[in-house]
Amino acid sequence: MTQPATHDTLLRLAALIDSRKGGDPDVSYVSRLFHKGDDAVLKKIGEEATEVALAAKDVRHGREPKALVYEMADLWFHCLVALSHFDLSPADVLAELERREGLSGIEEKALRKSRDREQNGD
Amino acid sequence: MTQPATHDTLLRLAALIDSRKGGDPDVSYVSRLFHKGDDAVLKKIGEEATEVALAAKDVRHGREPKALVYEMADLWFHCLVALSHFDLSPADVLAELERREGLSGIEEKALRKSRDREQNGD
Amino acid sequence: MTQPATHDTLLRLAALIDSRKGGDPDVSYVSRLFHKGDDAVLKKIGEEATEVALAAKDVRHGREPKALVYEMADLWFHCLVALSHFDLSPADVLAELERREGLSGIEEKALRKSRDREQNGD
Amino acid sequence: MTQPATHDTLLRLAALIDSRKGGDPDVSYVSRLFHKGDDAVLKKIGEEATEVALAAKDVRHGREPKALVYEMADLWFHCLVALSHFDLSPADVLAELERREGLSGIEEKALRKSRDREQNGD
Repeated sequence: MTQPATHDTLLRLAALIDSRKGGDPDVSYVSRLFHKGDDAVLKKIGEEATEVALAAKDVRHGREPKALVYEMADLWFHCLVALSHFDLSPADVLAELERREGLSGIEEKALRKSRDREQNGD
Repeated sequence: MTQPATHDTLLRLAALIDSRKGGDPDVSYVSRLFHKGDDAVLKKIGEEATEVALAAKDVRHGREPKALVYEMADLWFHCLVALSHFDLSPADVLAELERREGLSGIEEKALRKSRDREQNGD
Repeated sequence: MTQPATHDTLLRLAALIDSRKGGDPDVSYVSRLFHKGDDAVLKKIGEEATEVALAAKDVRHGREPKALVYEMADLWFHCLVALSHFDLSPADVLAELERREGLSGIEEKALRKSRDREQNGD
Repeated sequence: MTQPATHDTLLRLAALIDSRKGGDPDVSYVSRLFHKGDDAVLKKIGEEATEVALAAKDVRHGREPKALVYEMADLWFHCLVALSHFDLSPADVLAELERREGLSGIEEKALRKSRDREQNGD
């Protein structure tokens, strides 16, 4: 209630993205990505992830934090496009994060992974 | 209201992550990432982005969609860690997505970028 | 002749990597990667690519260029591991680069790709 | 001597790329990348790395291996562009790989890294 602006932003955005399926590739950027297929959708995630890393470095060296926020928004947006392309919803991802029962659950999982790595020597 | 479980998942998770700052690197996975510094935090985003792409391909070839949800949750989690590491909040990212005024605004921006690329021949 | 040390470095390294197939995962890092399978091999490429980007930014901000060379070596090394894992050789990649008939051929290809993007508006 | 075709492919290609510095961005794809600057050059590496991962998955699911070779060539090409942009040469990277004294040296380094990770619990 205290943050109605952020509430459901992802879900609302996902609904809009879903609505672009089958749309005109010449009019909508998202329709075009869908039209191009899996690789076009997925490589954007790799590209935007790199841009996040680059922007973060710039912020560390004095650039305004806004630059990182901007690139992170681009990354999340393309994550939503990918989820939609595979008929999934951000609600699924949020539920998975919930399922891990808070940070301790996620950390437990990450630590377990670390332990496995240790045993595998990697 | 229909999805109270997903409401504010990101903000709550971000608060938990923030609380790990300065924590014991031997006890908390997140504290350890913070302790290791920028590159450790940022390279996880590149790694998890690649895992999202790989999982998506597997889903396309018959693997259960859950696999993609799982990797996307890992990616978002490490995005939250990166935001926290740079003293930012997911609320900043959601506000940026809001600021673009819905999908049309984002598409407008993406299309503008495409036009620029066209002019630059890239 | 003037650079015998660099000649065939990639091919020699590839042969050594090939020899690690079926090796003991507890003794050899490469054998362990092979043993873990596709995703372990491929996600290293995404991770190392991000590290290259991060190191390059650091170099731009004053760090010694050696840091970028080091990360690039890591990336190429893991590219060789991936090629070997898929029964390919760096010679295949070099031949492909040759096949494009010098830079003009590659640029022609890249420009063609750009033209396609223009037509697709991306 | 037995592989004159692959000999120095990287060095020759690097020289050609170097020659594109300050060239017309409207004529040469590489000149355009240089002109755009660091981020344009570096994000291509993240993008191409993702494409390598995607192509490898496709090959695993039946696509011709050539697809992976093709994407790997794209990745290496953009690595050469990045090296040139930062006034480095592929010879520097090959020398670094040589310096690690063959695979055993690299594995030693990777294993040492793994041991560190173990101690850090990551």
